[in-house]
Amino acid sequence: MRLIVPLRGVIQGRGGLFVGSLIPCCLFYFLQLYLKGRRPPPSDPTELPRTSSRSNLFSRGNSIGRVRVSSRALPVAKPSDSPYYIGLERVKTDPYDRITNTDGIIQLGLAESTLCFDLLQRWMSENLMDSIMQSDAGEFDISNIAMYKPFEGLLELRVAFADFMSRIMGGKVSFDPSNMVITAGGTPAIEVLAFCLADHGNAFLIPTPYYPGFERDIKFRTGVELIPVHCRSSDNFTVTVSALEQAFNQARKRGSKVSGILFSNPSNPVGNILSRETLHDILKFAQEKNIHVISDEIFADSVYGDKEFVSMAEVAYSEEFDKSRVHIIYALSKDLSIPGFRAGVIYSFHEDVVNAAKKLMRFTSVSVPVRRILISLLSDVRFIEEYMTAHRQRIRDKHIRFVEGLKQLGIPCAVSGGGLYCWVDMSSLLTSYSEKGELELFEKLLTVAKINATPGTACYCIEPGWFRCCFTALADEDIPVIMDRIRQLC
Amino acid sequence: MRLIVPLRGVIQGRGGLFVGSLIPCCLFYFLQLYLKGRRPPPSDPTELPRTSSRSNLFSRGNSIGRVRVSSRALPVAKPSDSPYYIGLERVKTDPYDRITNTDGIIQLGLAESTLCFDLLQRWMSENLMDSIMQSDAGEFDISNIAMYKPFEGLLELRVAFADFMSRIMGGKVSFDPSNMVITAGGTPAIEVLAFCLADHGNAFLIPTPYYPGFERDIKFRTGVELIPVHCRSSDNFTVTVSALEQAFNQARKRGSKVSGILFSNPSNPVGNILSRETLHDILKFAQEKNIHVISDEIFADSVYGDKEFVSMAEVAYSEEFDKSRVHIIYALSKDLSIPGFRAGVIYSFHEDVVNAAKKLMRFTSVSVPVRRILISLLSDVRFIEEYMTAHRQRIRDKHIRFVEGLKQLGIPCAVSGGGLYCWVDMSSLLTSYSEKGELELFEKLLTVAKINATPGTACYCIEPGWFRCCFTALADEDIPVIMDRIRQLC
Repeated sequence: MRLIVPLRGVIQGRGGLFVGSLIPCCLFYFLQLYLKGRRPPPSDPTELPRTSSRSNLFSRGNSIGRVRVSSRALPVAKPSDSPYYIGLERVKTDPYDRITNTDGIIQLGLAESTLCFDLLQRWMSENLMDSIMQSDAGEFDISNIAMYKPFEGLLELRVAFADFMSRIMGGKVSFDPSNMVITAGGTPAIEVLAFCLADHGNAFLIPTPYYPGFERDIKFRTGVELIPVHCRSSDNFTVTVSALEQAFNQARKRGSKVSGILFSNPSNPVGNILSRETLHDILKFAQEKNIHVISDEIFADSVYGDKEFVSMAEVAYSEEFDKSRVHIIYALSKDLSIPGFRAGVIYSFHEDVVNAAKKLMRFTSVSVPVRRILISLLSDVRFIEEYMTAHRQRIRDKHIRFVEGLKQLGIPCAVSGGGLYCWVDMSSLLTSYSEKGELELFEKLLTVAKINATPGTACYCIEPGWFRCCFTALADEDIPVIMDRIRQLC
Repeated sequence: MRLIVPLRGVIQGRGGLFVGSLIPCCLFYFLQLYLKGRRPPPSDPTELPRTSSRSNLFSRGNSIGRVRVSSRALPVAKPSDSPYYIGLERVKTDPYDRITNTDGIIQLGLAESTLCFDLLQRWMSENLMDSIMQSDAGEFDISNIAMYKPFEGLLELRVAFADFMSRIMGGKVSFDPSNMVITAGGTPAIEVLAFCLADHGNAFLIPTPYYPGFERDIKFRTGVELIPVHCRSSDNFTVTVSALEQAFNQARKRGSKVSGILFSNPSNPVGNILSRETLHDILKFAQEKNIHVISDEIFADSVYGDKEFVSMAEVAYSEEFDKSRVHIIYALSKDLSIPGFRAGVIYSFHEDVVNAAKKLMRFTSVSVPVRRILISLLSDVRFIEEYMTAHRQRIRDKHIRFVEGLKQLGIPCAVSGGGLYCWVDMSSLLTSYSEKGELELFEKLLTVAKINATPGTACYCIEPGWFRCCFTALADEDIPVIMDRIRQLC
């Protein structure tokens, strides 16, 4: 009990009585002054609970006694001030269409892909009905799709997901369906993981720039903080152990408890692929600090460069590591281009996480008809192989076209190997090299060029002038239109 | 600043220096002793973070440094000790089948209905494909189902839901689609409402007996407490304002902040329908206390008695009330018997709740293919009318058969008018009139009679011997089997 130093003075006869009284008194009165300073002002009378008098009870049309929502819901209800969401909303008001609205805003802000819609359309036309309606007995039985099924996903679906994930990762790693929980998309997968790995007020380290949606995914309900680990263009925005170490130590000094490291691989928004060595270093760092590692791998198959994608699962299977700290997020929204189906996965080596996540699936389970479609789709190996080949080839082609268009304007991109976007260095177009300058350019892109690209500020990038541009929902003929529009700002 | 009384003594020259020092000193030292007493014992060495030494880093097969999940996930990960979930799990190990497993456990624990599966099967066979594949242009377009759509539900679906809800409520109340948020089932609807209406540690009053799932729905993540308002068989378990008042006052004395009242109507598990007067009284009470009202109306169309169902929305529309405190939960799992589709609704008169809930739908949105099916299904007025008529008639018939069977065994049921279950008074079968006796009977029902019925304890009923028995997934020929099995225990 080190704090009671003054009393020791009394015991030791060193005039401690005075000090032993003075210190507590000072603390006591300062505490009162501090608390008084923090006390909220008296409530607005309009917010007082109603009395039971009839005059109040039946008063209408004024705000007396208007009931309030929870304090945690209020910030959620408010419109977002992130340029990421502002841009997405602006597109809705005037969306570009190459036939019906050629002057509308072109969407480069949303990571979705239409590159292989011809293949998906064909598969769905041929198989959708049978996949929902199939049953062991051959004939359609409504009870197969209408009744309650285990919230966490049928075993069949988990097996199909595990096979699919292994396939897109080149068969280098196999996934155990019993470590897997099926979620209604990647978004609830990350939220549920955050809930399971960190308590309210704890934090995850996260390399910047990062996907702007993580803010909502994690902060809205779980109360977990995100501590940025700043990465720089000089390293092509790749995280280093020394940067992690520094952020970890700073957090600890501030009294934050760091529960894990969260990152996406391929990185979103940069598009770079983490090397096996970097993954190894991250896991080694996490082991040293005894924290979790959350690897968001939803772009695992959307790779187009020469660099090999390595899953954190593969590194975790290395003999030396305690795998229980490794958790992987996957979803079909990007690689299979079906975000509307809301299908994702938590893959965790920690038994408690799997058990808790299974129970939490009551809040976010995939409907049974969609499960049936997914089982058929993911199990159709011939189709999946055809899709994967086309998907990678088409991303590569579109990436080349898009980057080449920018290059001709003198606008460079970060080196990337995956993702549905590129990370564009528009700093040459800034009027001032600052966040303010970047946001001015964002606004000019929206209003003058009529393009919605996500500014680095929304991704917590510390270098101004970078923009995420998603290119996989563009037709080839859109690209020259975009370049012409950007040229106006050069 | 009332607390600094001692210093006033100094100013007023009443020897306050001594008192003004003594009190803070006492508080200070007592606080230290208290904190020391509460401090956790030194951590187990097995839980210390690993050091960076290689010997620790690469150790495997022991528990040194095993990473821990969050403290809030641990209770979620553990198996439940509620007889409700225990019963459901036991059925899975040996489910009754009238052809292949006649000696299995008969499920009376799950509120699902197969009564109108013939109608649903016909509708799905004829319309499912078209409903998913339809588009404005006539031809199937994959982008209609595969791409991102607003998480909170398409306007078309909200309009269809609003019409459907109004229809099952006899057209006495109309629902505004802009007050509506579509959720992936009733379960996330109640969770999201709890998050929006109450902060962590706040409470809802809830009349007992209540649906056992509310515990998980509300407590797992939102941290909202449920304060039981005990109802008795003498009132047919109907809540009264005096019971609410008493529970509210007791909660306040204990320092709990009550944020709302949550109840289901028709009541789950009793099946009674709240009268217009009772709803009026509840809303008046809520207005007096300035708290929210959450009315779970997912059994609104599953009514079979003579008593009219009245929605809380209808009462809220009465001139005298501030509607913003009223929130309604609805879902298609019960009335339309499609829990596998995971489709529910939050209907709220509070703008902040609607806005916050829309944003939270990123975690629990309905997939687009299922939205398309639901739009077609709910808009098919001829089918819906046919379904409603058959559904009500068949529940009525099944209820009569089931209750009659029990009556012949001398086992009475509570008076009920809705729901997929009845509330059975098996107190005559208890060996002791206590919770222990009830749980013994639950176990005997499971192991001897091989029937899973949910005991009142799981529903927080204070009178022993009541069981919820769901009868709408039973075939007529199952009922005599059940009665024969129960007879063994009489």
